[in-house]
Amino acid sequence: MTDPRLQTFLAECQARVVSALETQLPDPEIQPEILHRAMRYAVLGPGKRIRPALTYAAGRAIGLDSNVLDAPACAVELIHAYSLVHDDLPAMDDDDLRRGRATCHKAFDEATAILAGDALQALAFQVLASDEAVSASTPARLAMLETLARASGSRGMAGGQALDLVASRSGQDLNLAMLENIHIHKTGALIRSSVRMATLAHPRLDPESAYHLDRYAKCLGLAFQIRDDILDVEGETAVIGKTRGKDRAQGKATYPALLGLAEAREKADALGKESLRNLEDFDERADPLRWIASYVVNRDR
Amino acid sequence: MTDPRLQTFLAECQARVVSALETQLPDPEIQPEILHRAMRYAVLGPGKRIRPALTYAAGRAIGLDSNVLDAPACAVELIHAYSLVHDDLPAMDDDDLRRGRATCHKAFDEATAILAGDALQALAFQVLASDEAVSASTPARLAMLETLARASGSRGMAGGQALDLVASRSGQDLNLAMLENIHIHKTGALIRSSVRMATLAHPRLDPESAYHLDRYAKCLGLAFQIRDDILDVEGETAVIGKTRGKDRAQGKATYPALLGLAEAREKADALGKESLRNLEDFDERADPLRWIASYVVNRDR
Repeated sequence: MTDPRLQTFLAECQARVVSALETQLPDPEIQPEILHRAMRYAVLGPGKRIRPALTYAAGRAIGLDSNVLDAPACAVELIHAYSLVHDDLPAMDDDDLRRGRATCHKAFDEATAILAGDALQALAFQVLASDEAVSASTPARLAMLETLARASGSRGMAGGQALDLVASRSGQDLNLAMLENIHIHKTGALIRSSVRMATLAHPRLDPESAYHLDRYAKCLGLAFQIRDDILDVEGETAVIGKTRGKDRAQGKATYPALLGLAEAREKADALGKESLRNLEDFDERADPLRWIASYVVNRDR
Repeated sequence: MTDPRLQTFLAECQARVVSALETQLPDPEIQPEILHRAMRYAVLGPGKRIRPALTYAAGRAIGLDSNVLDAPACAVELIHAYSLVHDDLPAMDDDDLRRGRATCHKAFDEATAILAGDALQALAFQVLASDEAVSASTPARLAMLETLARASGSRGMAGGQALDLVASRSGQDLNLAMLENIHIHKTGALIRSSVRMATLAHPRLDPESAYHLDRYAKCLGLAFQIRDDILDVEGETAVIGKTRGKDRAQGKATYPALLGLAEAREKADALGKESLRNLEDFDERADPLRWIASYVVNRDR
């Protein structure tokens, strides 16, 4: 059961980022309609919006107004949404279902899904580059753009996907270090950038706070992925909204497969605790970050 | 036959941008090797580098040092290269040959090509965001980032691709206005952004010069596409490096198909002349822009 304070916080963040995304996404009546409908379908469907929530929560922990974080919150969600569209393609994970709905290439078609993903990535950078929120100085915005681009690229998310592909094709048994390397890139880099963009928006954050928030995000990202693997084994399709046991069926290396279910759970717990330890010097404004860490480790979907 | 002065200028631009791209592209020894090799294959193969040349040529016309233009020149070429990788995919144009070599998904595989395109797009924005060239102020860099993102996205290049897809699937006969709308987005937007990024790098360019350079680029982009269509009809595979007559075989609308070959040639000429007229108030430093306009209209590959 999710902490009701977290539920309230997440609902606020979701409403805030969805409203910003609605504004940033092109109107479905504008040509090319099919592309704009596919982009909106991919972004505005049900979603936890964990990454934007992390941006807002990190901002709150360091005393920032949420107004200056709408652009990075939107941008990171657009990158996440595009990556799901491309990951689901037949040449990649070949998934028909995502968050309980038809994947983008199923609801539209493959070419449209490729282009929608491409256009969503461009939109993410456009949103950050054209953000007019006064408090974020131009050097801060450039630093955010660089952070997001690095987190998305070949040494971030896209690189993690490629490592994952190579690993699943090689048929070779992965060890824990290799699996961790995949996830640090595939999901960890973007989660970390969600928090880092908030710290970059601060005009003069002390380096120690920035360091601890970055460590928080790094541990959280890995815990998130381990929990994802655990859910794939024990969850039900109806709850997690994707085909259950798919990882196992595809012979993918997962934490439960490498460590066993009990040890995988312990590892997720340990990482959750380590992420919390990095918040020790923060006051109660960091509570949303704390709630998110607890949720990530205990979530059932 | 290409003007020897243009050949010299293009060779200089090519050497300059290829050297910058070599530096910006991740080393092929860095993990994930296959992704980095695919990215380098897609970018560093033979190419005319017309877009970077336009950036440098526009910069020269307004008295800028080429040093401040390496980042935008790289960035626009990275976007162009990623778009070719994705356009060639089986779900898109399904091409096996590009510039006389196997397309990226043929040389590697489809999933790697999708990810290489994605990572090249991210790298384009990373290069612009992390550029340390002193003369380009941070607001100018943000403006360049916004320009490139808009030119690449759903109301630019990716949108033009989607319009093209919709048109070729509908089986409906296109009129000239619809064809022009496709090309203004599909190829025109990025060509225009190549020139516009140079004008944005200027600390205080008079609006009239910026306007005329933008008009130059707009006319040039359309002329380039008409010439491309003409080449597809009359060129030989060996010269243009892709399968000849492919557009016709796929039943795609082209300028020669709509206007006849003679009138299509006239239209390309007229646009070439209009682009040159926009350079009338510029001195001899705009000559490379003039040579490029003549080349685009007369090129045989």
